[in-house]
Amino acid sequence: MLNFVKQLSHESVVELIGLVSLPKKPLTATSQQVEIHVTKMYCLSRSLPNLPLAVVDAARSEADIEKSVKDGKPAARVLQDTRLNNRPLDLRTPANQALFRIQCHVQIAFREFLLSKGFLEIHTPKLMAGSSEGGSAVFRLDYKGQPACLAQSPQLHKQMAICGDMRRVFEVGPVFRAEDSFTHRHLCEFVGLDVEMEIRMHYSEIMDLVGDLFPFIFTKIEERCPKELESVRRQYPFHSLKFLPQTLRLTFAEGIQMLKEAGEEVDPLGDLNTESEKKLGQLVLEKYKTEFYMLHRYPSAVRPFYTMPCEDDSNYSNSFDVFIRGEEIISGAQRIHDPELLEKRARECGIDVKTISTYIDAFRYGAPPHGGFGAGLERVVMLLCALNNIRKTSLFPRDPKRLAP
Amino acid sequence: MLNFVKQLSHESVVELIGLVSLPKKPLTATSQQVEIHVTKMYCLSRSLPNLPLAVVDAARSEADIEKSVKDGKPAARVLQDTRLNNRPLDLRTPANQALFRIQCHVQIAFREFLLSKGFLEIHTPKLMAGSSEGGSAVFRLDYKGQPACLAQSPQLHKQMAICGDMRRVFEVGPVFRAEDSFTHRHLCEFVGLDVEMEIRMHYSEIMDLVGDLFPFIFTKIEERCPKELESVRRQYPFHSLKFLPQTLRLTFAEGIQMLKEAGEEVDPLGDLNTESEKKLGQLVLEKYKTEFYMLHRYPSAVRPFYTMPCEDDSNYSNSFDVFIRGEEIISGAQRIHDPELLEKRARECGIDVKTISTYIDAFRYGAPPHGGFGAGLERVVMLLCALNNIRKTSLFPRDPKRLAP
Repeated sequence: MLNFVKQLSHESVVELIGLVSLPKKPLTATSQQVEIHVTKMYCLSRSLPNLPLAVVDAARSEADIEKSVKDGKPAARVLQDTRLNNRPLDLRTPANQALFRIQCHVQIAFREFLLSKGFLEIHTPKLMAGSSEGGSAVFRLDYKGQPACLAQSPQLHKQMAICGDMRRVFEVGPVFRAEDSFTHRHLCEFVGLDVEMEIRMHYSEIMDLVGDLFPFIFTKIEERCPKELESVRRQYPFHSLKFLPQTLRLTFAEGIQMLKEAGEEVDPLGDLNTESEKKLGQLVLEKYKTEFYMLHRYPSAVRPFYTMPCEDDSNYSNSFDVFIRGEEIISGAQRIHDPELLEKRARECGIDVKTISTYIDAFRYGAPPHGGFGAGLERVVMLLCALNNIRKTSLFPRDPKRLAP
Repeated sequence: MLNFVKQLSHESVVELIGLVSLPKKPLTATSQQVEIHVTKMYCLSRSLPNLPLAVVDAARSEADIEKSVKDGKPAARVLQDTRLNNRPLDLRTPANQALFRIQCHVQIAFREFLLSKGFLEIHTPKLMAGSSEGGSAVFRLDYKGQPACLAQSPQLHKQMAICGDMRRVFEVGPVFRAEDSFTHRHLCEFVGLDVEMEIRMHYSEIMDLVGDLFPFIFTKIEERCPKELESVRRQYPFHSLKFLPQTLRLTFAEGIQMLKEAGEEVDPLGDLNTESEKKLGQLVLEKYKTEFYMLHRYPSAVRPFYTMPCEDDSNYSNSFDVFIRGEEIISGAQRIHDPELLEKRARECGIDVKTISTYIDAFRYGAPPHGGFGAGLERVVMLLCALNNIRKTSLFPRDPKRLAP
């Protein structure tokens, strides 16, 4: 049998028949506590002798690679494209096994919380007539002779579900962005976590929900995935996310003020760029000891036309962003439910009202005040584990250059 | 206030301030048990005075319409296209409210069962390079200059997840079919319930899972959605699905034999058409008292090339279909995990091996024996409630003629 084993290529799949036993002396070379005395062995699937990557190399931490270099025996570093080109092999590392279990548990906690609050899980279509609602680039296609595009958010349809009296809905599903953003945090296809709900009195009800939902998710991941977090840490060391039981909420103006006091130049009615967001994240961490917080009352000019303006000052809007470790993770707002105001805002933003008449008409048959938010599942997991690239948390990532495997 | 109320159009959204009280005499004109003594009333959203459909008309059962005709006061019948063109209004009927709660609960039970059996929920990409794996028509698009298509099943990627050591995975996500099928049971976009798992000994392990999973779902729906089922029944009467605690499993050959004995002409190595399936459903119901059963060992000729042939007779395959009320609802099989056999079968089926090299290569680095199945969420709910059209169970259906709203 030893000869049989010797000629097996790495990563081949074998079936063993044997006796499991507890060894008299504890095993030292492995973390297992039992031995198998193999009596029969079959090879179910023989892998090619030359693998494009060795799983042991793909599983090595940066620190171990650096140490190996210092020791004069440099270990192989598997580059990201090699990993992604051979994803089924790459997925076999302990860190990757763990990351996708954590991702699954993020969803479980997301659903668990929302279902307990009376939300309904829905599925909206990804194929849309014409071009999608937002500003970013869409993937266009031919639908039986009609021009169509892929939904770049379930925005319109989750709002229509609210108009259909569904009161509180959420969706977990793919979102398509044809943007040319080749960054560490953008994908052309990602899993959207989307929520829409009726508002009774004030848009802060949405922020209340977000402020409870995400700490719930963070806590559940710590409780339910300790081994998985440990596996990720062994390859990609990180500290646990600092968050407060009561989520910190600052106005956009307060955020701008903090940045100004720290000597940053920022436009009080403009958007924050990625650097300013990072900086503000640091300032908030120092002052409030949290890496999870919300910024609300964004300037109207930097939000989509369908965002409800603040009642007291239309330069600002009933909107918010949420940040983890200084990176934006959630965008949310109250939507305009009045068709006349919606038309007015569209015109003010230079949008041809005719092109969005379907959207506006949806509010002509009685529409309750409502709002919601969206987050990306891959980004949540990336920031939770402080990873440096969103491709690590997408099972088969799609970016401007990658459409396979 | 009465004047204010009188001039409100139907379906407007109002806010009431008042005192809730238990009336001394039980209310007769409504199913509510409390009254509100309104002191203030605001209109939050005024609907157009002329609605494209009245919710009360959309909520009427066929029996009530027929009765109204007999009584000489014919009530309006809202046609399907009118409903779907104005879906946010149509969704307000009690039956529709109930159907999408049932749909949500089908998913909850699906996940609950699979998670309890050690499955991991994954998300595979919907954007694929080239054309998808199967035979049916795909939606094609341009992806940054590369030819791409929308996944018509997560087949390849869920298999790659298994090759990535994930052991047991499932997905709930959109599936795209550019087929021109304009039937009561086909959509161009639907929600796929997909499962893939390692097999230890035999493909019957997959059937064991299906045979337990779906009765679990049926039972949970009865337990958790009694009011919703009642609401659907009031508009669309149906009897509860008859199913056995131990799911009936017949071989394809046994099914053919039953049809032959009943005088039907069927090809023993061909596929069953929709009529034969219906007929067999009736025969099975009469003989075994169940409307939920499986047919397995399908002829290899009618299954995709990647289906594992039976060990004892390669004319048949390790595959199965599952039926509810005589309609196919699930298709499943063991997949070929050996790249050489996969190439051979592709060639035998007239497929150019070069065009599917990515698929075949996925099995060259060690692939465990595995298999799985797929079902459509909308179809499960349609057949559970014995509805006559799948458009009733899709929130915003997409068919060859419909891409909106």
